[in-house]
Amino acid sequence: CSASRSREWAHHGAPMFADLSVREMKAVRDYLHGIPEMRLTEARGKSLKKNSILLMELHLPKKHEALKALDHGHAKPPRQARVIVQFGNQSQPNITEYIVSPLPTPNSHVVKTFKSNRPVRFESRPITNVEYSHIDAILEKIAAKAHKLLFETTGGFSYSNCSDRCLTFSDIAPRGLAPGERRTWIMLQKFVEGYFIHPVGFEVLINHQDLDPDRWTVEKVWYNSMYFDSVEELVEKYESGKIEKMKLPEHDDSDLYSTYIPRGHSNTPTNIHGPKLVEPQGHRYHTDNNFVEYAGWSFAYRVRSSAGLQIFDLRFNGERIAYEISLQEAIAFYAGDTPAAMQTKYIDAGWAMGTSTYELAPGLDCPEIATFVDLYHYFDTDKPVLHKNALCIFEMTLAMPLRRHFNSDFQGGYNFYGGLDNTVLVVRTTSTVYNYDYIWDVLFYLNGVVEVKMSASGYIHATFFTPNGLHYGAKVYDYVLGNLHTHLIHYKVDLDIAGQKNSFETLNLKYVNFTNPWSPKNFIVQSKLHKTEHKTERSAAFRFGKKFPRYLHFYNPNEKNKWGHQRGYRIQFNSHAHSVLPKDWREEKGISWSRYPLAVTRHKDSEATSSSIYTQNDPWEPVVSFEDYIRNNEDIVNQDLVAWVTVGFLHVPHSEDIPNTATPGNAVGFFLRPFNFFDEDPSLSSKNTVIVRPGRAGKPKVQRWTPEVVGHCVTDQPFVYDGTYSGV
Amino acid sequence: CSASRSREWAHHGAPMFADLSVREMKAVRDYLHGIPEMRLTEARGKSLKKNSILLMELHLPKKHEALKALDHGHAKPPRQARVIVQFGNQSQPNITEYIVSPLPTPNSHVVKTFKSNRPVRFESRPITNVEYSHIDAILEKIAAKAHKLLFETTGGFSYSNCSDRCLTFSDIAPRGLAPGERRTWIMLQKFVEGYFIHPVGFEVLINHQDLDPDRWTVEKVWYNSMYFDSVEELVEKYESGKIEKMKLPEHDDSDLYSTYIPRGHSNTPTNIHGPKLVEPQGHRYHTDNNFVEYAGWSFAYRVRSSAGLQIFDLRFNGERIAYEISLQEAIAFYAGDTPAAMQTKYIDAGWAMGTSTYELAPGLDCPEIATFVDLYHYFDTDKPVLHKNALCIFEMTLAMPLRRHFNSDFQGGYNFYGGLDNTVLVVRTTSTVYNYDYIWDVLFYLNGVVEVKMSASGYIHATFFTPNGLHYGAKVYDYVLGNLHTHLIHYKVDLDIAGQKNSFETLNLKYVNFTNPWSPKNFIVQSKLHKTEHKTERSAAFRFGKKFPRYLHFYNPNEKNKWGHQRGYRIQFNSHAHSVLPKDWREEKGISWSRYPLAVTRHKDSEATSSSIYTQNDPWEPVVSFEDYIRNNEDIVNQDLVAWVTVGFLHVPHSEDIPNTATPGNAVGFFLRPFNFFDEDPSLSSKNTVIVRPGRAGKPKVQRWTPEVVGHCVTDQPFVYDGTYSGV
Ligand SMILES: [Ca+2]
Ligand SMILES: [Ca+2]
Ligand SMILES: [Ca+2]
Ligand SMILES: [Ca+2]
Ligand SMILES: [Cu+2]
Ligand SMILES: [Cu+2]
Repeated sequence: CSASRSREWAHHGAPMFADLSVREMKAVRDYLHGIPEMRLTEARGKSLKKNSILLMELHLPKKHEALKALDHGHAKPPRQARVIVQFGNQSQPNITEYIVSPLPTPNSHVVKTFKSNRPVRFESRPITNVEYSHIDAILEKIAAKAHKLLFETTGGFSYSNCSDRCLTFSDIAPRGLAPGERRTWIMLQKFVEGYFIHPVGFEVLINHQDLDPDRWTVEKVWYNSMYFDSVEELVEKYESGKIEKMKLPEHDDSDLYSTYIPRGHSNTPTNIHGPKLVEPQGHRYHTDNNFVEYAGWSFAYRVRSSAGLQIFDLRFNGERIAYEISLQEAIAFYAGDTPAAMQTKYIDAGWAMGTSTYELAPGLDCPEIATFVDLYHYFDTDKPVLHKNALCIFEMTLAMPLRRHFNSDFQGGYNFYGGLDNTVLVVRTTSTVYNYDYIWDVLFYLNGVVEVKMSASGYIHATFFTPNGLHYGAKVYDYVLGNLHTHLIHYKVDLDIAGQKNSFETLNLKYVNFTNPWSPKNFIVQSKLHKTEHKTERSAAFRFGKKFPRYLHFYNPNEKNKWGHQRGYRIQFNSHAHSVLPKDWREEKGISWSRYPLAVTRHKDSEATSSSIYTQNDPWEPVVSFEDYIRNNEDIVNQDLVAWVTVGFLHVPHSEDIPNTATPGNAVGFFLRPFNFFDEDPSLSSKNTVIVRPGRAGKPKVQRWTPEVVGHCVTDQPFVYDGTYSGV
Repeated sequence: CSASRSREWAHHGAPMFADLSVREMKAVRDYLHGIPEMRLTEARGKSLKKNSILLMELHLPKKHEALKALDHGHAKPPRQARVIVQFGNQSQPNITEYIVSPLPTPNSHVVKTFKSNRPVRFESRPITNVEYSHIDAILEKIAAKAHKLLFETTGGFSYSNCSDRCLTFSDIAPRGLAPGERRTWIMLQKFVEGYFIHPVGFEVLINHQDLDPDRWTVEKVWYNSMYFDSVEELVEKYESGKIEKMKLPEHDDSDLYSTYIPRGHSNTPTNIHGPKLVEPQGHRYHTDNNFVEYAGWSFAYRVRSSAGLQIFDLRFNGERIAYEISLQEAIAFYAGDTPAAMQTKYIDAGWAMGTSTYELAPGLDCPEIATFVDLYHYFDTDKPVLHKNALCIFEMTLAMPLRRHFNSDFQGGYNFYGGLDNTVLVVRTTSTVYNYDYIWDVLFYLNGVVEVKMSASGYIHATFFTPNGLHYGAKVYDYVLGNLHTHLIHYKVDLDIAGQKNSFETLNLKYVNFTNPWSPKNFIVQSKLHKTEHKTERSAAFRFGKKFPRYLHFYNPNEKNKWGHQRGYRIQFNSHAHSVLPKDWREEKGISWSRYPLAVTRHKDSEATSSSIYTQNDPWEPVVSFEDYIRNNEDIVNQDLVAWVTVGFLHVPHSEDIPNTATPGNAVGFFLRPFNFFDEDPSLSSKNTVIVRPGRAGKPKVQRWTPEVVGHCVTDQPFVYDGTYSGV
């Protein structure tokens, strides 16, 4: 179809991928609340024994239906919502997911099952605010019993009636050791600015499986590297002098340690503003709700409440490159010496990381010139929640040429100089999962390259220091250990390279050795391309620790570029990831995707995600298991392929992680790069190129397609370039 | 010593590292020209049988002498020049290097020898302009003989008398197959804009070893995939119909293929300026000649004529982190089907890549706000050559927080929000080595991180297309093959972590498996730090293809941070490099550094560089061989250590390399990251932090140390932040 029609259809189809509107959310809520058999009550009601909506979000259309709208301009399929309902008020409490449709005036709901056909264990649900309020209550009781110990240990902090000497807590997941358990290690912390790095050395294991919080129990307590079966036991031994009393150093309110307050010296002034981005001639991208255009690019986006940012129907010059690029999961698996540290295996979709998209600050989180977009989530709430400025879109310069060449004449002059600034469109959200702040970026380059990137910031997850802890991290404060952990991020990349039918091959080099054709007594050794076509899913699932191919090439076997090469894209990794646990070891079953830096599968609507919101609290028998997708080892030649990409890094905390992990060096991701997809670099369409050639009498002649003067904010001087390099 | 004194001494010492001034260059030239025995004549004189200066550059002071000035404020040692003289007018032509001193009024010169004690073979010298003029002359003769063939093959192009249908050439290196040879494969190209990607399929091997160009010979000719022993043989066979005539497609002047001229379509306007960097309150860095200060950083820099950018005496808050970070070598080793392609093993220091620092264009190569610095080189010249705006220094924002955290209260509000913009100082030069443009960056982050980076642009090195060539690359134009090659870059990183005495260890993880202390019927498997101290040079030389450690840790065993950890830095790679030839295979001996992504040696003034300007034309028996530095396998515990870092990537050209390789995805390098070097993140000294806390009546209270309003260029609105996320 023509480029303009293709653009029109892309625009037409984008609303299929838009997150639920406030109106839609309210309609779905009201519809379900109107079904008597469900007996739904308010999610925020105090009881755990109730039926209520936990989460609702857009339910994606089936791909083949969406493609009818995107590729043929057909009517869009009706919008649908996915709703998670927790039925606590049942003899057999359960979690059920429904597809509710059509929006915005729903009149039907069907149960959504999982590929595994496993029911969702009630114990695997995320923790809600209400459950936290009960945890707070039991902690109050525990802390009251141990008041003296806590007060003496911390130098005056307590859990209740504490004004500026309060304690707070962090809870660890997974919550137990086997399916069906719901018992959580909780560690107490000083409730000061940056409390995540103020553990006080008191950890407690609470069994909160029962829906009656009065029946919750304390199963273990950890204090001063010792385990106790109850708070009472600890307190008795503490009071009677049977155990050593531990005492934190005097709390110093003037110690800025965990805060952002500036301190220290700098050679140059920082009390003035640094460099800023401006757009002297305005935005160069278009947005219309969730539809975005920039240079040759167009795409739709949404932020899934469960797992975060997704890009759909990504096209360049009207041709689809990917149907979907979306964040699936983020995990951080820890090691340490305290029970909380040893137990910590955060699987962040289980914390609804897609909803923790808090406000982005202009000039800090995104440049002032960014377009800030509000998001609405419906999770653990009774009405849609507005997240103001939770996503931003902006164009930036990387202060670097996309291409440049100085064509010397080697005589002090030149034939020509050419350059093009490397500008890029960025779509950004963040997820603040308690202590940690993930920054999620997708970057769109002028030359058909996409970069997907996670940058890490926020507080480290830290535990109480013990000497043995040094095997698992570094001391970062008087009484604090920064625990080693590995971050792994999983992405789904449904490439559709110039159509849905794609194949996958890898490229390596092999030395060849032959007689030198122009000097037969000599030999030539050189590298030769060695291509391997991967014909089945298993052969395209690369394990960490095994050799990884040099080039990963997805191509359309039916389409060639002008020079006869199969049109393709390649994935290029920017990652330092490794696996986090031995294969099949307990919690590892829940993150089977993490075995593979890359796995390639056949697309299936039933394999929409590699993880679920339930994995955190039941990683042992997950309802969504990525391994299932490749187990049938399907043929992947000339098929609709999906690439599943794992990136990450080992994080051994160090003093410079205080107060926060900093982004420089802590970004991982991957590039999607055209590889004979186009006939030449498509950024040639940018009229921002400048060419300089020597003119008459050596005066440079500038050829350009943009205004000569940028504007007074940047400079009121025209561009100058001379090109000569002459003897003096 | 005090911070202010340390800063003063750093400033005092920086001129030791400054490149030669024009006055110094002229004084050295005049001094040497005044020595009758040398019989020096003009370098640009037409004869090859002459004695002349080839190159002069600063000769660095010995480290221990420089440190007296830098660490104790002592007098600086006298400045010295390193001069390469080619003695062609001798019975035994030779290359001799001299150290000339003191500057700026030299009165002595001594011969500089190499660690290997090998004399420099005369044949290993770089090619000069004069030699090129003789090559041009012989090519004229060759092309005249083959005029008809060339004219018919190319559709009207010829080497002489050609106006807009001219041919030009590229020469291949190394120049032969063994030491002492000087015979070069040369390929003809259409002389149009971007001629590097216009090979016409005519390659010729010229022996130009003799200093009398009249005695140069043609040894081979390659045409239409056939070899001929002489131009005459080829012409005879061509004219008599004994070989197939090859014919390029009609030359189309309107085909923009190799040019920068914009073409193609974009959805959004590009004929306006994109985002630009501004400094609303001016520069936030200081420069004084080659001395630079930014945030906590200070350093000196120079651009060595032979190999390029060097950073010296890098300090943070007055404490040295590295004595030297410097580019050593850049290579590109190719494979292909034509003799030129098979022979191409570019070793760019041999092309004096440090001198090919051509003018940087504002707004393209560096932002308009950059400080542009002129450089002077003395290579193949009779007077210093001014390279205007050849280096730039600028601060930029990465449009990303350095750290950020949203501290939710999980009730629709927050405890605080904090953020700090990620700004960075960039020092940039480029080297345009004929077709290729390397962009050399060093980035200095606020948090003590340094990033060293090469971004690749410019034209690919392309050869004439043959079907067999597809094993070695991709067709990128009717008659052009983009040849696969590997880029490798070598850096010297003389870390001095809080002093000269350093040790080196690597960190890996090992699983441990033990009984769960709080549930003894279960086991815990978790990762544990596994540190390996590398005590000798050989044990710290990591080979490509072997397992590479997760963390590379350089530390001062005698210095601890506040929390008791040895103060250190680690090197983090951003690279996709592999070795390019089997170990010890012919030319590989010249690049023995390329065996190792990382090697660690004891510092020696006599091991200043890992390569030399002579390696390109004699890689077989190089005068500087990195392998020699580790062969004695010295003890590296508590010593002055130097890290040698190789980064790079495999480049399989593809259609999108036309017209130029683009920088996105084509950047490699490494980070130097503090690892328990400081007591906390030193970027805390930046007053650009903004903290927001909920104030009275929910109104956000902003704490900041910079002006509230940035300025009208960016925005005339004050910073706003709300922090709440509330139900709607
Ligand atoms: Ca499958
Ligand atoms: Ca696909
Ligand atoms: Ca040595
Ligand atoms: Ca050192
Ligand atoms: Cu981390
Ligand atoms: Cu290349």
